Amino acid sequence: MIGPRLSLPHATMLAYLTTDAQVPAALLRKLLQEAADASFNAVTVDDQTSTNDTACLLASGASAAKLDSPRAARAFAAALNDVCQSLAYQIAADGEGATKVVTILVEGATSQEAARTIARSVANSPLVKTAMHGNDPNWGRVLCAAGMTDQPFDPAKAVLSLQDTLVFRHGQPVSFDAARVSQAMKAPEVRVRLNCRIGKGSATCWTCDLSREYITINADYHT
Amino acid sequence: MIGPRLSLPHATMLAYLTTDAQVPAALLRKLLQEAADASFNAVTVDDQTSTNDTACLLASGASAAKLDSPRAARAFAAALNDVCQSLAYQIAADGEGATKVVTILVEGATSQEAARTIARSVANSPLVKTAMHGNDPNWGRVLCAAGMTDQPFDPAKAVLSLQDTLVFRHGQPVSFDAARVSQAMKAPEVRVRLNCRIGKGSATCWTCDLSREYITINADYHT
Repeated sequence: MIGPRLSLPHATMLAYLTTDAQVPAALLRKLLQEAADASFNAVTVDDQTSTNDTACLLASGASAAKLDSPRAARAFAAALNDVCQSLAYQIAADGEGATKVVTILVEGATSQEAARTIARSVANSPLVKTAMHGNDPNWGRVLCAAGMTDQPFDPAKAVLSLQDTLVFRHGQPVSFDAARVSQAMKAPEVRVRLNCRIGKGSATCWTCDLSREYITINADYHT
Repeated sequence: MIGPRLSLPHATMLAYLTTDAQVPAALLRKLLQEAADASFNAVTVDDQTSTNDTACLLASGASAAKLDSPRAARAFAAALNDVCQSLAYQIAADGEGATKVVTILVEGATSQEAARTIARSVANSPLVKTAMHGNDPNWGRVLCAAGMTDQPFDPAKAVLSLQDTLVFRHGQPVSFDAARVSQAMKAPEVRVRLNCRIGKGSATCWTCDLSREYITINADYHT
C-alpha cells in the first residue's frame, strides 16, 4: 500500500464479484453499472462516500458458459442484480449502530432519476432515521424529506404506507392504529412505500436507523 | 390556524426583523435575500428544511431615516447582515443536542457558489459532526466531505486548519499536537478553515456537533 488514509475512518465499500461465465468485458461493465445503480448506489448509511468505494466484477470463463441468447443474458443480469442487492442490503443492516434496515420504495415519480433522488432524500434524513429508531410512524418526516428535493412532488397526491399500513393520502394522514404500526416497526426491516402518483418512475433505496450507537462509534473514535 | 402540521416536528425557523428606516420594498427584498444567503441559508443543524421556514423584514419608516446615499445603504446592509448572522449563529448553538457551534470557513474555491456547496457538505457530514462532538481533530473527515461535492476540489492543494492550528497541506497531514488541538476543540465554538487554493470564492457556514442527545430528542419524540 502507498498509504493514502483519507477515507480510512469511513465505511469504505469493497465489493468483489466473480463468475465463471464467458462474458465480454464491455457487456460485463454495462451489466455491473446497471446492477450497481440499483444496489450499491442505492444504499446509504450516512451518505458519506469514500475514495476507495469499489465494485469489481471478474469473469474467468472457466465454465465455458456463454451469454449467447437474450434469455441467457437476462438470466445472468437478474442473477447479478440479486447478488448485488443482497450485498447492498447487508451493508445497510451492518451500518454503524444500525438496529434495523429501512427499505424505501418510491413509485409514481416523474422518472427513475426523480424516484431515486426522492428515495435517497428520505433515506438520508436524520429525522426519518431517528423516527425509525424510535419506532415512530412519523409520516410527516417522510413526506417532508420527499418534498425537499429539486424533483417534482405533490403531498396532495402522494400515498404513503409504513409496514404495509396506509398512513397518508389526499394531503392528510388517514386514521390508523399508531400503536400497532409502532409495534410492527420493531421488526428487523421497516418498509416505507411512497407512491407519488405523478408519473411512472420507481426506485428502491436501503438505509438503516440512526441510533446513539452511531454517535458512540463515530465520536469516540480518534485518529 | 388552518392546521397544516407537515413540518411540526422540525426545527422550523421563523425570523422577524424590523427597522424604522424608510426603505422601498424592492430594495428591502434585495438586501434581505443577500443577508439571508449569508446567514439563515448558511446555517444547518440536520439539513432538514421546513415548509414554514420564514425570514420577514418590515420597515415602518417611523424614523423618517432614508437610505439616500450609497454610504447609508451600505451601513444599513451591514447592520442587517450582522443581525441575521447573529440570529443564524444562535440557531446553530441552539441545535438539537448541540454542545458547540462549528464554524466552517471555505476560501479559495472556484466561486462563491462552490465555496457554499463545499462548506455545506462539511457542515452536514455526520462524520465531521460526530468528530467535533468527540473533540477529534479528524482532518480526513473534513477533506472527504469537502471532496464529495460536484464542485472542483483538489486535496493536494487544500490547506486546512482546526481551531487556528494548521493540520493539513500539500496533500498530507502536517505534524501537530493532536492532544492540544483536541483540548482546544472543547470550546463553545470550533473553527474549521479550509483554503482550497484554486480560486477566489469564499463562504462561511455554521452548524453544531452531533450528539447522542440529538438521537434522544428525535427518536424518543412521538407524533
